[in-house]
Amino acid sequence: MTTDGELGAHEPLTESVRALIDRVIRTKVDTATQEAALAHVSAALNLLGERTMPDSFGMHAMATHGPTTAGNVVIGERNAIAPPLIVERDGTGQVSADVDLGAAYEGPVGHVHGGVCSLLLDHVLGATAHRPGRPAYTGTLQLRYLRPTLLGRLRVEAWVEHEQGRKTYARGRILRDGNVTVDAQGIFIRPRDVDAG
Amino acid sequence: MTTDGELGAHEPLTESVRALIDRVIRTKVDTATQEAALAHVSAALNLLGERTMPDSFGMHAMATHGPTTAGNVVIGERNAIAPPLIVERDGTGQVSADVDLGAAYEGPVGHVHGGVCSLLLDHVLGATAHRPGRPAYTGTLQLRYLRPTLLGRLRVEAWVEHEQGRKTYARGRILRDGNVTVDAQGIFIRPRDVDAG
Repeated sequence: MTTDGELGAHEPLTESVRALIDRVIRTKVDTATQEAALAHVSAALNLLGERTMPDSFGMHAMATHGPTTAGNVVIGERNAIAPPLIVERDGTGQVSADVDLGAAYEGPVGHVHGGVCSLLLDHVLGATAHRPGRPAYTGTLQLRYLRPTLLGRLRVEAWVEHEQGRKTYARGRILRDGNVTVDAQGIFIRPRDVDAG
Repeated sequence: MTTDGELGAHEPLTESVRALIDRVIRTKVDTATQEAALAHVSAALNLLGERTMPDSFGMHAMATHGPTTAGNVVIGERNAIAPPLIVERDGTGQVSADVDLGAAYEGPVGHVHGGVCSLLLDHVLGATAHRPGRPAYTGTLQLRYLRPTLLGRLRVEAWVEHEQGRKTYARGRILRDGNVTVDAQGIFIRPRDVDAG
């Protein structure tokens, strides 16, 4: 039995909605078949809408003192927009993630949208500054696009350049087939009120 | 009757999947109800999967000489990840978009993910450089986060600072309740081969 806000079948459900995003983009079925699919999506919407949180997942989780990241747009296991990114940390403070981006992340034809590259880099650089229960906010982020990033399997890496009080100076990059396509540097800040806690 | 790659019921279908992303995040229904919803999502997946494009929408559209943006992650009318952003241009070259971001775009609790801010700014700054049939690629992008961006209704604005050959120097910002939360500057480049065409 599940409790409020817990999603018993969440992993298969989120995975299926993620696949559905891709399939709506790439389908070539006729209108009648699309309409039949739409009827199923509407039925799923009605079922899931029987009881919902009033705000975001994070707001709900904070109010119920649970972990807040399941709805996160980059890493959330309930968020079908999230690839999701699985962020790994090694012993040296380096953070990395391998991710396969398909049709749903397209900008220029056949390429990852430049803004999706910045989204991933913001998250992974920011992850170098996060501490358990002490999330960091982006202060600045500077991106250099060295070559186009083809859709497919990417590696995102980041590391701490130096730290100063509540500020972490991070650097990072995206690699496609071993070549750096975008590099980034940024300053990430842990809020004062959390710092004092 | 629809032809290859045309999505007859695409607007309601994409809209419904967009709503479904949000509802999977915010639902509080029990496991049995989630499983019933999952069965409907699987049925929709099967129907839409009867015929699909082999690659991304953009690759398919380029091969068939159609417009390529319907699958775009920020503006695509077939892409449920896209809010979608409706980009407006006034007579002076200013570009803007009003958008309402809900639970699916969350980063820090109750706030828009910093990387989603960069995604929107990349797109809107880049739009100042786009010409019909001549998309621009991001060269550099610099972001300053001035205050947290609450989920809800945002305005994204950008304008050309100056142009030099194939390069457009653009500036822009995100406003929430009239306050600038993030400002940005970037260089966007139209590819040489397109320029020569």
